[in-house]
Amino acid sequence: MASFLITGASRGFGLALARELVSLPDTDVSKVFASARGDSPDLDELAKSSSGRVVVVKLDVTHPESIKLAAAEVDAKLDGKGLDVLINNAGVCQYAADGVKSMDNLEESFAINVLGVHWVTQAFLPLLRKGSLKKVANISTTLGSTTLAPAAHYLPAPAYKISKAAMNALTVQYALDHEKEGFSFIALCPGWMKTDLGGGNMADLTAEQGAKASLDIIFTPGQKYNGLMPKVLVKGWEKNAGNNQYDGAIAPW
Amino acid sequence: MASFLITGASRGFGLALARELVSLPDTDVSKVFASARGDSPDLDELAKSSSGRVVVVKLDVTHPESIKLAAAEVDAKLDGKGLDVLINNAGVCQYAADGVKSMDNLEESFAINVLGVHWVTQAFLPLLRKGSLKKVANISTTLGSTTLAPAAHYLPAPAYKISKAAMNALTVQYALDHEKEGFSFIALCPGWMKTDLGGGNMADLTAEQGAKASLDIIFTPGQKYNGLMPKVLVKGWEKNAGNNQYDGAIAPW
Repeated sequence: MASFLITGASRGFGLALARELVSLPDTDVSKVFASARGDSPDLDELAKSSSGRVVVVKLDVTHPESIKLAAAEVDAKLDGKGLDVLINNAGVCQYAADGVKSMDNLEESFAINVLGVHWVTQAFLPLLRKGSLKKVANISTTLGSTTLAPAAHYLPAPAYKISKAAMNALTVQYALDHEKEGFSFIALCPGWMKTDLGGGNMADLTAEQGAKASLDIIFTPGQKYNGLMPKVLVKGWEKNAGNNQYDGAIAPW
Repeated sequence: MASFLITGASRGFGLALARELVSLPDTDVSKVFASARGDSPDLDELAKSSSGRVVVVKLDVTHPESIKLAAAEVDAKLDGKGLDVLINNAGVCQYAADGVKSMDNLEESFAINVLGVHWVTQAFLPLLRKGSLKKVANISTTLGSTTLAPAAHYLPAPAYKISKAAMNALTVQYALDHEKEGFSFIALCPGWMKTDLGGGNMADLTAEQGAKASLDIIFTPGQKYNGLMPKVLVKGWEKNAGNNQYDGAIAPW
């Protein structure tokens, strides 16, 4: 009977997460608040066919006022209950064709990928405290691992890498502050997926594969992953080389 | 005959670096461009007594226009030569008394500690390319190590920690992009010093100790420290516990 809020649920991985969650029995997943900045016919359709279990919520993670309104709406629709799981999925992957010296989008990447996660978490923390699972999954990537940066140098997305490193550091600050209350703040790496952000069909996993494997991590009982960066475990991808190894291991910062 | 640019040189560690550099023979250190946002009588005095080797430059790292003007001024005063060393020292340490959930200064910390470093580096890169040493030291801290975060949880400065983690990630992106050109981009940890930022007399090292030990790292020939986070080596502090161990080792990200 858990309730979920997903940001960036209009398409790609966020939408796949909502689909996966609503495919589970309603004894496991009661409500999925699927939030997005703009309209999404795909998400609307999912909500329409969900017997009221998927609720579409307007939420722009870069606007504190929008977040506040969304939190009030979710609170009202939970009828006094808490929120169990927050999945901070909204994010951008921005490129700099001529390397880091040409990077002009770091400020924007910070706004969406880091400040957005902070503000949403801040706003929903009171509701999460009333929830029973107390899980916050911040969607991350091994590209945000500074330790693994040399192996990822081929990809000219410095603002994405730097902002995800900062989001990881933010996740650990939340994890340390709220560990004693029973929270798990997880920097969750769903893998390279065939989504718009992932760059389409070149990628390793379908959004559905990434979503299923990510929920395995989120549904793991207890605080095993608090303050850590787990990679998903996907059959057939456990022994791949380098950053595309989906072996369920903890990635280094 | 090396030339240096230091940001945030009005006081504390930045001023101590300028003092140390100008105390070296002018065959080693020809020119020190000591930049600051505001006026500093201490810095002006140092410049006055330096026989023209310390040049005070106005530079606000949060204003691209100010950086551009400073770069033009330094270029003119180098008489066609390159700049050898850039020390990105300007920074803030901001606190959040009630933990990360009460943090309202992350955006400002990013602006000064990360975007400021990026913009200054971007603007001075053409001059550094013409220099012979090709060293960029971004002043960091083990508090910016996400791996070491649990040991530093007692200090309620999440915006400082998160922004320094991001600055470290930025440093590595620059390091990887410019390694083949002979550059060293270093996330240099000078230690906890008795400065305004460090919080005064509680701290471990004097600004002078931190400056001397930092210059040992910067003057190390070659690219040994490129893309790494070295801690300073200070006699008597090599075997201290935890984050206050100044043993010259490389800190983990």
